[in-house]
Amino acid sequence: MRSETATGLFTPTFVTERFGESAGARAWLAAMLEFESALVLAQADVGLIPTRAAEEISRRCVVEEFDIDSIARRAAESATPVIPLVKDLTDRVDAEAARYVHRGATSQDVVDTAAMLVARDALRLSLDELRVVAGECARLAEEHRNTLMTGRTLLQQALPTTFGRKAAGWLTAVVEAAEGLDRVRSDRLAVQFGGPVGTLATLGSHGTRVAAALAGRLGLAEPTLPWHTDRTRVAELATSLGTVAGTLGNIALDIELGAQTEVGEFTEGRSGGSSAMPHKRNPVRAVRVTAAARRVPGLVASLLSAVPQEHERAAGAWQSEWEPFGELLRLVGSAASTTGEMLGELRVDEDRMRSNLELSGGLLLAERVSTALSEHIGPGRAAELVSELSGRVTRNGTTLRAELLVDETTRAVLSEREVVELTEPGDYLGSADEFVDRALAAYTSWKEKTTGDSGL
Amino acid sequence: MRSETATGLFTPTFVTERFGESAGARAWLAAMLEFESALVLAQADVGLIPTRAAEEISRRCVVEEFDIDSIARRAAESATPVIPLVKDLTDRVDAEAARYVHRGATSQDVVDTAAMLVARDALRLSLDELRVVAGECARLAEEHRNTLMTGRTLLQQALPTTFGRKAAGWLTAVVEAAEGLDRVRSDRLAVQFGGPVGTLATLGSHGTRVAAALAGRLGLAEPTLPWHTDRTRVAELATSLGTVAGTLGNIALDIELGAQTEVGEFTEGRSGGSSAMPHKRNPVRAVRVTAAARRVPGLVASLLSAVPQEHERAAGAWQSEWEPFGELLRLVGSAASTTGEMLGELRVDEDRMRSNLELSGGLLLAERVSTALSEHIGPGRAAELVSELSGRVTRNGTTLRAELLVDETTRAVLSEREVVELTEPGDYLGSADEFVDRALAAYTSWKEKTTGDSGL
Amino acid sequence: MRSETATGLFTPTFVTERFGESAGARAWLAAMLEFESALVLAQADVGLIPTRAAEEISRRCVVEEFDIDSIARRAAESATPVIPLVKDLTDRVDAEAARYVHRGATSQDVVDTAAMLVARDALRLSLDELRVVAGECARLAEEHRNTLMTGRTLLQQALPTTFGRKAAGWLTAVVEAAEGLDRVRSDRLAVQFGGPVGTLATLGSHGTRVAAALAGRLGLAEPTLPWHTDRTRVAELATSLGTVAGTLGNIALDIELGAQTEVGEFTEGRSGGSSAMPHKRNPVRAVRVTAAARRVPGLVASLLSAVPQEHERAAGAWQSEWEPFGELLRLVGSAASTTGEMLGELRVDEDRMRSNLELSGGLLLAERVSTALSEHIGPGRAAELVSELSGRVTRNGTTLRAELLVDETTRAVLSEREVVELTEPGDYLGSADEFVDRALAAYTSWKEKTTGDSGL
Amino acid sequence: MRSETATGLFTPTFVTERFGESAGARAWLAAMLEFESALVLAQADVGLIPTRAAEEISRRCVVEEFDIDSIARRAAESATPVIPLVKDLTDRVDAEAARYVHRGATSQDVVDTAAMLVARDALRLSLDELRVVAGECARLAEEHRNTLMTGRTLLQQALPTTFGRKAAGWLTAVVEAAEGLDRVRSDRLAVQFGGPVGTLATLGSHGTRVAAALAGRLGLAEPTLPWHTDRTRVAELATSLGTVAGTLGNIALDIELGAQTEVGEFTEGRSGGSSAMPHKRNPVRAVRVTAAARRVPGLVASLLSAVPQEHERAAGAWQSEWEPFGELLRLVGSAASTTGEMLGELRVDEDRMRSNLELSGGLLLAERVSTALSEHIGPGRAAELVSELSGRVTRNGTTLRAELLVDETTRAVLSEREVVELTEPGDYLGSADEFVDRALAAYTSWKEKTTGDSGL
Repeated sequence: MRSETATGLFTPTFVTERFGESAGARAWLAAMLEFESALVLAQADVGLIPTRAAEEISRRCVVEEFDIDSIARRAAESATPVIPLVKDLTDRVDAEAARYVHRGATSQDVVDTAAMLVARDALRLSLDELRVVAGECARLAEEHRNTLMTGRTLLQQALPTTFGRKAAGWLTAVVEAAEGLDRVRSDRLAVQFGGPVGTLATLGSHGTRVAAALAGRLGLAEPTLPWHTDRTRVAELATSLGTVAGTLGNIALDIELGAQTEVGEFTEGRSGGSSAMPHKRNPVRAVRVTAAARRVPGLVASLLSAVPQEHERAAGAWQSEWEPFGELLRLVGSAASTTGEMLGELRVDEDRMRSNLELSGGLLLAERVSTALSEHIGPGRAAELVSELSGRVTRNGTTLRAELLVDETTRAVLSEREVVELTEPGDYLGSADEFVDRALAAYTSWKEKTTGDSGL
Repeated sequence: MRSETATGLFTPTFVTERFGESAGARAWLAAMLEFESALVLAQADVGLIPTRAAEEISRRCVVEEFDIDSIARRAAESATPVIPLVKDLTDRVDAEAARYVHRGATSQDVVDTAAMLVARDALRLSLDELRVVAGECARLAEEHRNTLMTGRTLLQQALPTTFGRKAAGWLTAVVEAAEGLDRVRSDRLAVQFGGPVGTLATLGSHGTRVAAALAGRLGLAEPTLPWHTDRTRVAELATSLGTVAGTLGNIALDIELGAQTEVGEFTEGRSGGSSAMPHKRNPVRAVRVTAAARRVPGLVASLLSAVPQEHERAAGAWQSEWEPFGELLRLVGSAASTTGEMLGELRVDEDRMRSNLELSGGLLLAERVSTALSEHIGPGRAAELVSELSGRVTRNGTTLRAELLVDETTRAVLSEREVVELTEPGDYLGSADEFVDRALAAYTSWKEKTTGDSGL
Repeated sequence: MRSETATGLFTPTFVTERFGESAGARAWLAAMLEFESALVLAQADVGLIPTRAAEEISRRCVVEEFDIDSIARRAAESATPVIPLVKDLTDRVDAEAARYVHRGATSQDVVDTAAMLVARDALRLSLDELRVVAGECARLAEEHRNTLMTGRTLLQQALPTTFGRKAAGWLTAVVEAAEGLDRVRSDRLAVQFGGPVGTLATLGSHGTRVAAALAGRLGLAEPTLPWHTDRTRVAELATSLGTVAGTLGNIALDIELGAQTEVGEFTEGRSGGSSAMPHKRNPVRAVRVTAAARRVPGLVASLLSAVPQEHERAAGAWQSEWEPFGELLRLVGSAASTTGEMLGELRVDEDRMRSNLELSGGLLLAERVSTALSEHIGPGRAAELVSELSGRVTRNGTTLRAELLVDETTRAVLSEREVVELTEPGDYLGSADEFVDRALAAYTSWKEKTTGDSGL
Repeated sequence: MRSETATGLFTPTFVTERFGESAGARAWLAAMLEFESALVLAQADVGLIPTRAAEEISRRCVVEEFDIDSIARRAAESATPVIPLVKDLTDRVDAEAARYVHRGATSQDVVDTAAMLVARDALRLSLDELRVVAGECARLAEEHRNTLMTGRTLLQQALPTTFGRKAAGWLTAVVEAAEGLDRVRSDRLAVQFGGPVGTLATLGSHGTRVAAALAGRLGLAEPTLPWHTDRTRVAELATSLGTVAGTLGNIALDIELGAQTEVGEFTEGRSGGSSAMPHKRNPVRAVRVTAAARRVPGLVASLLSAVPQEHERAAGAWQSEWEPFGELLRLVGSAASTTGEMLGELRVDEDRMRSNLELSGGLLLAERVSTALSEHIGPGRAAELVSELSGRVTRNGTTLRAELLVDETTRAVLSEREVVELTEPGDYLGSADEFVDRALAAYTSWKEKTTGDSGL
């Protein structure tokens, strides 16, 4: 792997710089060094090794001083980057300190703990981005609570709704998915420290005291047990990212569909131009989010497949986690970031929403009219009449309101005002507004709850 | 689909009768009828429809009176079983009541709520089974806290551990995965009720009151919003089942590996015989659990892929959930049940565990010895010496202890008692016992917490 | 599993009766009995066992005489249905013949060979359905080679195309995917016969002669080796079904998008009605195909994950194949059948296609005009001019043609006829027609090649 | 993405330098430039543009002159690297030539064709590596055709086999999977060239002639149609790589299991040491292959999920292919390379194979003995007797042979020589040797067939 293949030609389309860094090679290496440093300091804390040696080692755990490419290359020989890393670290410290480097730890302790540290940072950033996404959804829900639009099912126009109600749906999904991710962040990130077979044998009876000190120094939870072949933490992290990715993909899908030339309800603020086709307004951010979200279920499945691991440490399943784990963090965080940007700049065409709602000449409300008529003329005759009038609407390109207003049977039982009200989409929104309120209230409560504890 | 294809020839190998029923066609239909019944009663509760009509409808919502095969067959025409079901239900009630059947609901309200009801029952059973699994793991951890065995990494013997420690690892994983599932059960199962586009338009301003009454009658939570195209609940349910499946697969894998003829540490109580090979002790339950667990990540990925859904109700993604959703419930519950059975009857060969530990002539402890010697003769000479003695052990088929006892350099610095202690695997277990205690304590606390609230 | 759970409530929505049967429990059992019958007859053929005994056994291999539910239930105890099946078969034959039942075979020989027989029948049916799909695509391509419609990229209108060209694209994909499936059918379905560890030890030196006779009797290929833990055949079958499913899903997606109310170019012949929303024309068949196709990648991934299998026969991975294998056959065959039906009844609204093409006032051809103008006034000025005129089109709701015809700069260099031609979408189709010809030619050649050899 | 994150810290463990380069960013960019160059030359070939301009452009299509990082970064704005690439290329050529850059093409033409070129190179290398793997398997099959070992099923010892037979199984799987990959390489790699909507509109009536010339210049097949939303080629490539990965994972799994301390039949030539545990012989290459193979099914599923693509060019599904496509090429090629290395250096412990075979005291042959005895004393008594003797073997730690030789009933009907022969594992190998011959013959024929045409 030469340096010229450094940046994936396609990577920046899916991964923003911030997330590329937060789960990139350098971040991993820094986290491994953070482990090695905290490990010796924790052993000094409990009196197992000399403080001087611990400090000497800790002082050398500086990512800039290590050659990532070299470590990566040598990792292949032992299928773990920890062996070359520990060698390079040992070479950098004085002879006395050298005896204490990495003592009691196994390479999986280092990589798993580093994964948790990398995840902690990436999740913090991701949750920030999800807060932005939720904030934009909340703004749209509030601003557009009275913006009428067509509700669509099976890609067919169905009944009226509001754009506020739609945005409230996005909001609720994002908040609930973010809550799941936040719970993993706060409850399930834990230090890994068990030594070769999860007994901390080398440390005699001091193992759990060192583990506690180590966890404290790293700011990670101390688990009940070392979890070398208990991958529930990784599975929960991966799957909660998977759920988040799905909700982002859902927003992007709705934007893409609404941005269709024939629908025209949404335009991205900075739509992608096409040199060849100047009229196009490509929903570029939605496409990027969609593409990223589509890659996620396969990565999650890989990680779930890897939960069963052999004995005390696995032969392949564990190693298969490393790159998909980082990829998930990168893709989902970036997708959240891109979604926030997309929503922040979204142009909503209210006129188009209204005109799409009128495309069918008011037939969206046929059932409502039929129900109202059936109070007077019975369900059977009402259904027949509405069906006949609907046929005329379609054939003649008129509207249901117009046909009702000139229909004698109708006018015998309904006043003009009643007909007008029955055929007014804005009067047939049920609990849409109330749902917007509920979504906003849940959002507000979540925002308050989380703003504090994730340290923003 | 004729009746003779009724039972999958292979299904009972993976799905126990109990779970086959709990998420089978009859259970789904019963849940759909439970929705239709609760819907009219809820509308009567809030005064929207006559109580008499609601009771008439409710009285007919009896699964035995409906023809499942016929409904299933007719479902294909509209891609939803709800249309034929509502038709059959309407045909069964009197003319007055007929007007109120299914009012305000869309077919997805019925199927999604039924999914939640089916899940509730299946999860309750699954959590019962997981409690059994955890109980067996706890028993093994306790009983075998002093049973020495080999810890293995990358499928190689590494260091001593205890079977108690291993079982404690299974226990912790199962408890933590079950906690995740239980949280979904208690927090995320909610009624679905939004009408065609999630506005409850037909119910005017009464929608949310009906929704609340409906949720109350069904014993499900009332969600912030109808969640037709917000699939976070389904995703969280699927993924928490996926995590559970992984932990069960993990136990089964360890059993299979320990049951290998060359290892011989485990035998299933009722091993599968082989007519052709009488000496075989097939780990049949482990194989069944493994096979079931392997099918889960693909199903989870399907459900995660289906999270992005179009507009107010989806064209394909939602429908793709139905069968994988039920399959996950069936497979994971059954796998838990089979795992409990397997562990309950597991035969543990402590002698074989001990003799496997001695296979390498004590070389598992070479590093320990080297560390002890280095205090006296320095790390360099110690490493050299141990390496030389290890070579002799391998060549001569002796033990490290024997070689140390006759080695002059060693004997100059270590007493016989010290050599014996250093080479005693039972003295090199670190925190294994403490970890067993911690796992048991976490289990006890979980058991106490959950025994109450899941109503057992 | 009781009989009342017989038919999945949702199954017929995705699985047609024909495919439900072709890969159902009865078909599997019949195929297993076909193996047992052919096995004894083959051994008689080569003189290993008495013909009379072989005929006695063969005579009993009649699926109606076996109790599928009982075999399925007892299968769980050994994790294979073959043990109870062989027991029941042995019980049915006379004492002399009983000695020869299943001789030399292992249970995997039976299940794997049955899988190949089931696949052979299901693939034959599936290829029939794919020929229907291809036939409909070819008809549409031919009939609509001059039907103008909008070509869309990233869900935006882009340039004109023809519906014939679009159908030609569907056709080519279906033909090429079907070719892949057909190749697996003709090249990769092979008998499985190796005995417990793939040596045919019980048959001494007669093993391969029996294998050849067995393959001959079953009409399956004789493989180079027994393939118990070489799952390339299963992987190729699964993945070629996966490719086919994708191409069907692709057609369904285009139909769904074209059937949107706002697009209105397609209507399914028998659209699903909605009791609540009479104006809806749900693309029910497209939705069913989409839903089925979405379940396929997860199933394929499960089967690919199961390719690595332990030693001579696997502990879990193999068993995990059974149900996904049958599910793939059922889903993909049924999806082909539903797609054929959908296309056969598809209503194409040519007027709507034309009016959608005109939605942008001819801006789809802006680049063409710009290129033509640049010959006269240079690319810079041409681009500027077209951009200015395009702005007017959008603002004034006119057309590009109209703006060009009144623009002085344009009229100085282009005649009215030239302007009309340049803005005529039907004149900007490039090789669309030629591509239709090529697709039809490839289809014809494939049809001729395959009609013969799949024995229809 | 900064340069310091250049090399994934974990990447070299899974991806060899050769494959990292063959599907790395530089290779993609070079392939895109190869397309742009061939495109203008092809247009010159058919007389559409001036040869001088074409040559000017072609001369600039040199990967070293482009800034990959910059192109990658700017790609995000339009979700395609082609727009910045074309801009940079256009900037580099003279004004006259600038008009002809990229004419008639759409960005997907460039990326898809580049994917085919990258795949062509990576597949050629991969097939080379697979030939090495097959060669090693063939060598092992030949060398060890008489090396007795235990055949194992469900991880239990079952019957004798030979290591030659096992290696023949690996060989056959690899050859058949490689054939599938080779077929894709030779039949399914095709140029992509359709312009924005697959009509080649810009080229008027010259489109297909240019396409043919372009294909000729690139050495790729000319497809029936442009295949922008017909992803069968990508699906077939991905799935055939998936099958190959499975066969490599299968070999690695067998090696890992055989390398277990308790089995000890295999050691990797350069086993990974463990600083902490000097006795360990980690099967590092097997672990790396296993880990790589485990990541493949999820990537394949992603690509299969992306087969359905909207209209003429997709909004997300296509873009989601890019990175998984490259990742598959890198992982599978590298896994083949690592497998070849692993097998080339594999140490086979024949003594250990023999002693493992004797672990059960000859009970592996119990059925054989029982069958032989039943000829004399009837199946019932024979089974009883063997069962009784088997019990003694287990209890007393003797062998079946020894027990038979001292058993009176046995000795009444079988001579000493007969007993010895019946209990000799080397005499109970059925067609093992013949199967080795068949596998080698198939290998030889494949090798001859392929050595020529892939141009090595």
